[in-house]
Amino acid sequence: MPSAFKTVALIGRYKSRDVAGPLRSLATLIGGAGCSVLVDDETARASGVTTFPVASYETIGAKADLAIVLGGDGSMLSAARELAPHGVPLIGVNQGRLGFMTDVALGAMAEKLNSVLAGEYSIEERTMLSTTAFRGDVEILASLALNDVVVNKGATGRLIEFLVHIDGQFVYDLRSDGLIVATPTGSTAYSLSSNGPILQPSVPAVALVPICPHTLSNRPIAVSDTSRIEVTLKHAADARLHIDGQPRCDLAEGDRVTISRAPRPARFVHPLGYDYYAMLRGKLHWSESPLQ
Amino acid sequence: MPSAFKTVALIGRYKSRDVAGPLRSLATLIGGAGCSVLVDDETARASGVTTFPVASYETIGAKADLAIVLGGDGSMLSAARELAPHGVPLIGVNQGRLGFMTDVALGAMAEKLNSVLAGEYSIEERTMLSTTAFRGDVEILASLALNDVVVNKGATGRLIEFLVHIDGQFVYDLRSDGLIVATPTGSTAYSLSSNGPILQPSVPAVALVPICPHTLSNRPIAVSDTSRIEVTLKHAADARLHIDGQPRCDLAEGDRVTISRAPRPARFVHPLGYDYYAMLRGKLHWSESPLQ
Amino acid sequence: MPSAFKTVALIGRYKSRDVAGPLRSLATLIGGAGCSVLVDDETARASGVTTFPVASYETIGAKADLAIVLGGDGSMLSAARELAPHGVPLIGVNQGRLGFMTDVALGAMAEKLNSVLAGEYSIEERTMLSTTAFRGDVEILASLALNDVVVNKGATGRLIEFLVHIDGQFVYDLRSDGLIVATPTGSTAYSLSSNGPILQPSVPAVALVPICPHTLSNRPIAVSDTSRIEVTLKHAADARLHIDGQPRCDLAEGDRVTISRAPRPARFVHPLGYDYYAMLRGKLHWSESPLQ
Amino acid sequence: MPSAFKTVALIGRYKSRDVAGPLRSLATLIGGAGCSVLVDDETARASGVTTFPVASYETIGAKADLAIVLGGDGSMLSAARELAPHGVPLIGVNQGRLGFMTDVALGAMAEKLNSVLAGEYSIEERTMLSTTAFRGDVEILASLALNDVVVNKGATGRLIEFLVHIDGQFVYDLRSDGLIVATPTGSTAYSLSSNGPILQPSVPAVALVPICPHTLSNRPIAVSDTSRIEVTLKHAADARLHIDGQPRCDLAEGDRVTISRAPRPARFVHPLGYDYYAMLRGKLHWSESPLQ
Repeated sequence: MPSAFKTVALIGRYKSRDVAGPLRSLATLIGGAGCSVLVDDETARASGVTTFPVASYETIGAKADLAIVLGGDGSMLSAARELAPHGVPLIGVNQGRLGFMTDVALGAMAEKLNSVLAGEYSIEERTMLSTTAFRGDVEILASLALNDVVVNKGATGRLIEFLVHIDGQFVYDLRSDGLIVATPTGSTAYSLSSNGPILQPSVPAVALVPICPHTLSNRPIAVSDTSRIEVTLKHAADARLHIDGQPRCDLAEGDRVTISRAPRPARFVHPLGYDYYAMLRGKLHWSESPLQ
Repeated sequence: MPSAFKTVALIGRYKSRDVAGPLRSLATLIGGAGCSVLVDDETARASGVTTFPVASYETIGAKADLAIVLGGDGSMLSAARELAPHGVPLIGVNQGRLGFMTDVALGAMAEKLNSVLAGEYSIEERTMLSTTAFRGDVEILASLALNDVVVNKGATGRLIEFLVHIDGQFVYDLRSDGLIVATPTGSTAYSLSSNGPILQPSVPAVALVPICPHTLSNRPIAVSDTSRIEVTLKHAADARLHIDGQPRCDLAEGDRVTISRAPRPARFVHPLGYDYYAMLRGKLHWSESPLQ
Repeated sequence: MPSAFKTVALIGRYKSRDVAGPLRSLATLIGGAGCSVLVDDETARASGVTTFPVASYETIGAKADLAIVLGGDGSMLSAARELAPHGVPLIGVNQGRLGFMTDVALGAMAEKLNSVLAGEYSIEERTMLSTTAFRGDVEILASLALNDVVVNKGATGRLIEFLVHIDGQFVYDLRSDGLIVATPTGSTAYSLSSNGPILQPSVPAVALVPICPHTLSNRPIAVSDTSRIEVTLKHAADARLHIDGQPRCDLAEGDRVTISRAPRPARFVHPLGYDYYAMLRGKLHWSESPLQ
Repeated sequence: MPSAFKTVALIGRYKSRDVAGPLRSLATLIGGAGCSVLVDDETARASGVTTFPVASYETIGAKADLAIVLGGDGSMLSAARELAPHGVPLIGVNQGRLGFMTDVALGAMAEKLNSVLAGEYSIEERTMLSTTAFRGDVEILASLALNDVVVNKGATGRLIEFLVHIDGQFVYDLRSDGLIVATPTGSTAYSLSSNGPILQPSVPAVALVPICPHTLSNRPIAVSDTSRIEVTLKHAADARLHIDGQPRCDLAEGDRVTISRAPRPARFVHPLGYDYYAMLRGKLHWSESPLQ
């Protein structure tokens, strides 16, 4: 039976030669399943694996039916920002311990991926955010985000003050270290360390989570993911915009950051038997109860 | 112009004679707007206001097009549990300071209600929960909830241990003082004092918020309100089920509590200009920023 | 060389026959070290170990130079309340996984206790609390506590309102599920699950930790352990006083609970090499860092 | 009767001309009480108040018996770092709303300060920290702190990883946005916004409060203020050391920051009737209880 996926892309953690072995195994496995393989060109360069067809993210977006990401959650984040607009589904293989998004262990890779290529998988959609930063009328950044958009204090470490509006309605004026706007996927990342709620991935909401808020009664709030969120910097000696944990641009007083749901979600491929709550329990050590 | 509401019910805070004056004013105002008035029979008895037609909750459910609740958030909760299944919309008049749900102040009552009766209002739907408790196969309680369903430790104060399943999937096994399952409406009540997130009312989710969890990494989680949540008591010297803050039945080891979205939401009538975030800012004192 | 401890008492977890074997081993070990052994009379009865001299807690308090507690942290708590006033030092042997206070594992018992009996140990003092509850002028309860004194809502589950004074000075008026007053030892127990701070055992402070406070800006506060803390119930349908996790008496509106440092601390004996922070890391799983 | 204070220094908020009027009033008041006045030279320059004797911080430290600080809590922090080593007591006059440390309102200034100068006051000691940062064996910064010493992520916003040792004992290895080491005075500042406990000023402890810790079970811990705390940067793309909210130096991997109690505390002068808990209630809005 031919695979459900005709063309499969391989993307590895950058700046790492360790992926060479697994990459070659994967490419062979994909060929053996009757699929074409495309290796991301930066991955090929970084890993030295050059015996397979290479392609840019743009070509992968146009041609691939599946992308296998060899790396950690960070690799999935950047692959999702590149490939989600093209609708390419992603599956993550983790070389270390499993991540929140990379649920195939290296040791089980061959077995699991053969099953997936043979059609045994589920698809899960994950909401992404589309964010734009403005200085006056000038757009200074536009980006997708899978985990979170963070407006944070900058290099001097001084707190910032900002206004939040949702669909044009004023929500609050807050002094804090920053604000995390997290998707359900991002709700188990930085947001969680700042006391944000976990949002189960099918909940159509985004969480607004203040970082070290000076108003002690300000608490995380989840709003509909159809909302248009606007954060306006009121006072900020310096501030910075982070997307999925990466600093992307400096922000100044008066700058506005708008955040809304991206037109297309990321699509995760899971081997059959994937269990979100089992993953949570494992990652968050919920089986351990120290107090008596 | 005739009112949008032909028959208007009046419901007062129980065990209070203070409502007599406002009740009479309201009944006169309603008559003056060309509407029929029905006074809830227990309200009539408690307040001594007996000169208007009285009716049971059942009759109110069948006949009223609007119910005006004179009281606090607690009065709204019980009125919603009674009248939401009949689709009767509710509006709250608060004798003290405004509540999260009672957004008409006594002083502005005449003006605001005349406008509402004249058709100037918005309707907001609030998700309700339907909960059932089982001992073996026997149903020991069934109830609606507008705010929350709480499985709590009982009289001895010993912690309980329970399992949570969502749509049949195991989520966690937790030792704690209890578990709050809150609607968006309930997310600003007990849940908030236990570090639960605020869920904006249009978010189709419920929050599972542990109370004093022994697993320190267990955090509040919001799941889709289409989920079927099941809480099973694993160990409990004694435990109790609370609905909207009222103790409703004792629970024993092995008892199961199921929670899902009720078929019909509560419907809140707001005067034009209602602003959820302004209400939050006011109730939670978000304008106050003590730290420097 | 004769042991530093002439008379050693043995105390086991109550209602358990499992302790019989370890109790006999311990008694033999103690005799072999040239010490006299006394078995707590309830332990003897519960375990069926009746071949050694038995004694009441009172006699143990008068005669023993060391008490070995076979059980968990709960057994240590009750032994400390009984024996701390007599200055008898305690060492805990845990049959299951190690506790916060019971730091000798069953498997290492012989080796560790032989060393301790031979004089290789350290002594650590742990602050205890002395608490008294009054109804009007009548004392309704007096007790020592090693972990915590908790004023909690009672059987109906309705929140309580209480005033806190410290050394006669008004601190706050709070509506909540309750208040935990915790020693440093108790700061890693119930208090921690209610977001209380960890107090390193040598810090001469007690923590006041509200449980689900309605005032969202009310936060845990640590005060000097020389303070006299007074909690007065202002509103309470029902309330209860818990000492070290045990319900001890009902409380009514107007009742006062006073809490101050007990005249004598508990004294813990640790094998050489005891490391408080290593114990914390192990119990609280601090080596595990799920987020990326 | 001559004043208890022979020489009184005046220190104003920098970069502000608004202090000119109150400064002149204060200087006149001090002279009228029979005391000598010294105006801090930078305050004189910034305010244009040049008709009174000016002096450097060093001279003030040597000669003044009291320093009056006109400003907010930030002005008190810097005055305390300068003058605490000389034992000069401080009193704060706040031009805006009262601060945590500045407890004399501008409107009540004349009355309160006349009483203080006439001997009606109390003195409160506040623990200060002495911190030193090392790169290898080279000291790269040494400073006093009244509120807090913060090791924080720097300009790139990437989390840092550090080790904490107390008195040479390993405590934990943490990945987080940073670590706050707060005095009791600082426990109501930045630390509080990061869920740190309030430490009543007489508690001889410092709080270690992680900022957005990745280990969800890592909680604030209070240790004796006689402890020597050492924070070693294990991984940090960039990091920074902040003292009392001011960025002071960049930190690199391997750098060590040691923190211990300063030899001399800050000394606060309070008008009679000063009430720490009343101040807390006011600043933290503890009288407000939004939830029902």
